[in-house]
Amino acid sequence: MAEILKGAPVTEALTKRSIEEVEELKAKGIDPCLAILRVGERPDDIAYEKGAVKKAEAVGVTVRKVILPGDVSQEDFDKTLTGLNEDKTVHGILMFRPLPKQLDNEKARQMLDPAKDIDGMTDGSLAGVFTNTETGFPPCTAQAAMEILKFYNIPIKGAKACVIGRSLVIGRPVAMMLMHENATVVNCHTRTVDPASIARNADILICAAGKLRSVGPEFTNPNQVIIDVGINWDEEAGKIAGDCDFANVEPVVKAITPVPGGVGGVTSTILVSHVIKAAQREH
Amino acid sequence: MAEILKGAPVTEALTKRSIEEVEELKAKGIDPCLAILRVGERPDDIAYEKGAVKKAEAVGVTVRKVILPGDVSQEDFDKTLTGLNEDKTVHGILMFRPLPKQLDNEKARQMLDPAKDIDGMTDGSLAGVFTNTETGFPPCTAQAAMEILKFYNIPIKGAKACVIGRSLVIGRPVAMMLMHENATVVNCHTRTVDPASIARNADILICAAGKLRSVGPEFTNPNQVIIDVGINWDEEAGKIAGDCDFANVEPVVKAITPVPGGVGGVTSTILVSHVIKAAQREH
Repeated sequence: MAEILKGAPVTEALTKRSIEEVEELKAKGIDPCLAILRVGERPDDIAYEKGAVKKAEAVGVTVRKVILPGDVSQEDFDKTLTGLNEDKTVHGILMFRPLPKQLDNEKARQMLDPAKDIDGMTDGSLAGVFTNTETGFPPCTAQAAMEILKFYNIPIKGAKACVIGRSLVIGRPVAMMLMHENATVVNCHTRTVDPASIARNADILICAAGKLRSVGPEFTNPNQVIIDVGINWDEEAGKIAGDCDFANVEPVVKAITPVPGGVGGVTSTILVSHVIKAAQREH
Repeated sequence: MAEILKGAPVTEALTKRSIEEVEELKAKGIDPCLAILRVGERPDDIAYEKGAVKKAEAVGVTVRKVILPGDVSQEDFDKTLTGLNEDKTVHGILMFRPLPKQLDNEKARQMLDPAKDIDGMTDGSLAGVFTNTETGFPPCTAQAAMEILKFYNIPIKGAKACVIGRSLVIGRPVAMMLMHENATVVNCHTRTVDPASIARNADILICAAGKLRSVGPEFTNPNQVIIDVGINWDEEAGKIAGDCDFANVEPVVKAITPVPGGVGGVTSTILVSHVIKAAQREH
């Protein structure tokens, strides 16, 4: 039976720290502010927004919602984003993507000021992750995986880590972040031949393929710690589930994050902590 | 006995292509131009400069040398670099570093226009390597290693690759470039426990630790292809040598690059090809 690495205690610890940091900032007269830039009324965006607003308010971060009509012109969108970039009272910007198709997604991504890019989408943030410097912010999900490892005192330095998946929101950045902490990392992907034979050598396995039940016991070893980043809909069970075949993997590894209740809940807490960090960096 | 993967035929093929591309550009009235920005008279810089100038002239790329006194002020340096960034007749800028200590190295790196950053030192270029987009250019040595693999038809897709060394000029970027070509890559470094046991599983081994004779036969297997990026001074032998213990490694692997005569010579050819690419992108 594996240790179950729940996200809730991690969120709780991070939230506590965030509350203290916001108090320190407010004592200096700084009011950390998250701007949410949403175009249209997509249910996914609104659901994520609600969670982020709740987390922000819980730690004392001000939220400013900027909601543009779904058919906004490029010119008006650009003006709004530039305004938020230049507004010194705004410390972090959560920009929902993909944007509606009349808008240039790539242009918007590049326009966003890396200093306010709290979800690690700009080239500035990604270069920061690659070079291990404090430019922008890492993608929240990648940092959430790292925070869980740290909270539960999983040794990273000198460990062998395997990351399955190479997306820019989780796979590639978390591989880099693990290496910066002195793990030796192999990054598997869809073209990897026999990933199970590689994964089963790992002390730390990050599952970020986004594919239901793609990681079975043949990927594991009894000393392995698994961080399951997958959030998939399990049609059969009628509920969400991770990338791991949890029922068969959990009994044979050392520790594993559940889905739901693992990485997912930590992510929006990280987002809010980035707003605070952005405010700290500026002052 | 391993196949010896010499750099000269790779350089020759790349040079031939560069000559054709320069002719095409000139037919359109575009004169690809490399600006060399050097501060002071460091022998290392001058030696590299001579090689680059020769390569550039051999393919018809114009060279403009901008040499500043060793005690140049930050203001004058900034003005010069900004001038080169803005000069539309300059396509690529080779900026020698480290700069003398009165100048801000980091500021200079960030000031350089990524579009003219032919040696992959800016955050723009490094983000391009990380995200696999055509922003800036990859570091020349990393691309030289890739070009050698491609020239000799070494299969990369689906291969297991091991990179030893995680510097920003070679280790990290070449690991990314191999992954973008669908290899499965593990990046070893000074904190890796038992790197030999990891390296010996690799089909492709990139030696980029910069440590004389740090890679012996225990890192290899008979089907392995080694790209030795190390350039070290072998005191005992009185000549330069790679990271591999060549005498003992060469007999037991499938293929290996020599040092000298391997990656080194390809690097400046790549530099010049980046000037041409910069000119092509712009037009």
